[in-house]
Amino acid sequence: MQHARPLPNYLVQRFQGWKATSYAENHAWFRRLASEGQHPRAMIISCCDSRVHVTSIFGADTGEFFIHRNIANLVPPYQPDGQQHGTSAALEYAVTALKVAHVIVMGHSSCGGVQGCLDMCSGKAPALEEKSSFVGRWMDILRPGYEKVKDLPEEEISKALEQQAVLTSLENLMSFPFVRAAVEAEDLTLHGLWHEIGKGGLECFDPKLGGFVGI
Amino acid sequence: MQHARPLPNYLVQRFQGWKATSYAENHAWFRRLASEGQHPRAMIISCCDSRVHVTSIFGADTGEFFIHRNIANLVPPYQPDGQQHGTSAALEYAVTALKVAHVIVMGHSSCGGVQGCLDMCSGKAPALEEKSSFVGRWMDILRPGYEKVKDLPEEEISKALEQQAVLTSLENLMSFPFVRAAVEAEDLTLHGLWHEIGKGGLECFDPKLGGFVGI
Amino acid sequence: MQHARPLPNYLVQRFQGWKATSYAENHAWFRRLASEGQHPRAMIISCCDSRVHVTSIFGADTGEFFIHRNIANLVPPYQPDGQQHGTSAALEYAVTALKVAHVIVMGHSSCGGVQGCLDMCSGKAPALEEKSSFVGRWMDILRPGYEKVKDLPEEEISKALEQQAVLTSLENLMSFPFVRAAVEAEDLTLHGLWHEIGKGGLECFDPKLGGFVGI
Amino acid sequence: MQHARPLPNYLVQRFQGWKATSYAENHAWFRRLASEGQHPRAMIISCCDSRVHVTSIFGADTGEFFIHRNIANLVPPYQPDGQQHGTSAALEYAVTALKVAHVIVMGHSSCGGVQGCLDMCSGKAPALEEKSSFVGRWMDILRPGYEKVKDLPEEEISKALEQQAVLTSLENLMSFPFVRAAVEAEDLTLHGLWHEIGKGGLECFDPKLGGFVGI
Repeated sequence: MQHARPLPNYLVQRFQGWKATSYAENHAWFRRLASEGQHPRAMIISCCDSRVHVTSIFGADTGEFFIHRNIANLVPPYQPDGQQHGTSAALEYAVTALKVAHVIVMGHSSCGGVQGCLDMCSGKAPALEEKSSFVGRWMDILRPGYEKVKDLPEEEISKALEQQAVLTSLENLMSFPFVRAAVEAEDLTLHGLWHEIGKGGLECFDPKLGGFVGI
Repeated sequence: MQHARPLPNYLVQRFQGWKATSYAENHAWFRRLASEGQHPRAMIISCCDSRVHVTSIFGADTGEFFIHRNIANLVPPYQPDGQQHGTSAALEYAVTALKVAHVIVMGHSSCGGVQGCLDMCSGKAPALEEKSSFVGRWMDILRPGYEKVKDLPEEEISKALEQQAVLTSLENLMSFPFVRAAVEAEDLTLHGLWHEIGKGGLECFDPKLGGFVGI
Repeated sequence: MQHARPLPNYLVQRFQGWKATSYAENHAWFRRLASEGQHPRAMIISCCDSRVHVTSIFGADTGEFFIHRNIANLVPPYQPDGQQHGTSAALEYAVTALKVAHVIVMGHSSCGGVQGCLDMCSGKAPALEEKSSFVGRWMDILRPGYEKVKDLPEEEISKALEQQAVLTSLENLMSFPFVRAAVEAEDLTLHGLWHEIGKGGLECFDPKLGGFVGI
Repeated sequence: MQHARPLPNYLVQRFQGWKATSYAENHAWFRRLASEGQHPRAMIISCCDSRVHVTSIFGADTGEFFIHRNIANLVPPYQPDGQQHGTSAALEYAVTALKVAHVIVMGHSSCGGVQGCLDMCSGKAPALEEKSSFVGRWMDILRPGYEKVKDLPEEEISKALEQQAVLTSLENLMSFPFVRAAVEAEDLTLHGLWHEIGKGGLECFDPKLGGFVGI
């Protein structure tokens, strides 16, 4: 790989700072994490967006959450076709090998992936419809969600579709036999959240009310 | 989605603590992130492993890194077949929409996904060979890496294969036309790291030496 | 300008070293900074003193902080009289054009400007009282601060006046209508720091305690 | 000052990292800097722009450069009117108290202040003409420079005016009696630079050629 480059210097310095403080003060814990392996309590599925740090929001300690981050925090439906499914692999590992007690899907406001889906489905982004568009094909997962919100007033539709992304993922989670079995055995609970970046808000899906409720 | 459950109380409490402190003290910044959108400098591809917090290691500010996390920090080869490729979608969004300046792949010690690959390729984990194993099929990406390290002494092979996961990803990155074009136009640089959890170590791939070197 | 001279050779060499390393390894980032413009999170107002490098202390990446440096990190009161006010111009640009989320004022130990103010106010530096003394007239901004600390024991007075320089600046910041409006709209927060050069210390003003507290 | 807030947590962590590494490894030097005072070799006048780090470009050690940063790296003309002149105060301190051997003025590409001057002088920014505009009044210093470049082709005018900002500052520097005296006594040399952010370029004013020449 002759294309690889050295790490930018500001990151080298910050790493060394971390090592001399956070690591040095906790290295018994890091050594134990290394020797005993991880025992995370929950899997969190959130977006790649740089503005969403679940580790901050939930005060996560190292070793506490198994975190998968992809565009728009989507879980595709169960599809055991022998192809490469990164999200399904992460889910399988978390539920069957690590036996996490919770799977938490967290969406967020101003989501670029969801916006792309909205543009695509409403005919404003033909490039995303092309077969070669990875973002477009990935956001296909959310097409059924778009159908449910497309008639809402324009100022409500983004948030509604961001929340549909969470609900779609929760539904697709249940299509995985190992997830369904664990849920039915009450070894696993599923949770849906939506985070509002600007207001620092957090809403949780409540199945009784059929909607998201502020925490 | 009648299966969703309320958020566990300890997470509610931590969220409320975060909101009353980190959010409250910085909400001007969060509002600006919400209104102006994200401008991350780098995409980081790291593992879902709960013991690996790139945001801590690199003192990341909210908004600074676009982070994709999957099993074993793997990038599959370019395959524009109209199927769902979550990693490729994240990469496409980061490079073509956000125009990040760096893509950093970070592997780590004691990687469960890499261990699974090792077990599978050496015949010790037939379940992973099944078509329905998402982890197995995902780790297929690393089979060529296994071929390169399989004759090493047993005590060296895990680390070697974890580093091959980084190198495989760096090679596969270059198979994406938009990555190659950005690298060749010198708009993007690629970086390969391997993090040792227990010792708090960090090694960077150096193409001149053909190996990873401690930072 | 016939007085200009070539750059001293040691600086030419260092520049060329920087260009061949830090720039070369990160020039994708520098080009993006050039094409997209800056989006700094914070404005930092610190002293010109050669011993105070905020970019080092805070591991700053290029593009991260908008930095104004003047003698004794002073902000004069709001005075829209049509004259040239360099500090006020920098502040106006940061708050109204760049919309930074934080203004951080950082004072420091052994500050020569503060020492000059102390000498002037206690009658030991008549030259600084002259109308033509730019340093004296600039340090006039800190005269009210001197009144608050002048009766302290001699060994405490320098540090106390250095911290008054920070507090005076914080107060004067609020006299600018655009700062006050942004603070009241919770779009901007103000922070006061004092850095001890020899001990590598950092203290932050805590309004509840009414004093500076070590970090 | 009840408006002050605690330091954002990511800066606290980075500071602690700096203290445990850069400071800890060099504290003999920091203590000496504290006890002996500063002896900088040069004063650098550069822009507040977050993309311009003279300390990086010139590999500056702590204690090496006395740095004043304002909008568009401007030095106003000598005006000993008893008012507050922050730039003149910094200059006076550097030349008469610290006796620096060089004053280096460094401009740069994509300068927002220079762009504001261009807009203002060409009638496109009436708000900057108002008496209450600090940025407008500060950029008045560059009006004579605008007159010299206004007839250039549009694609050349920004760079030309950024370089005029440097030349205007160099000229105004010579209007300060203490600068002129030091220059004439050959105790001080003046230098004009222009830095191109995207290309990592550096040009130096050469009085023989009457223009800026790449280093």
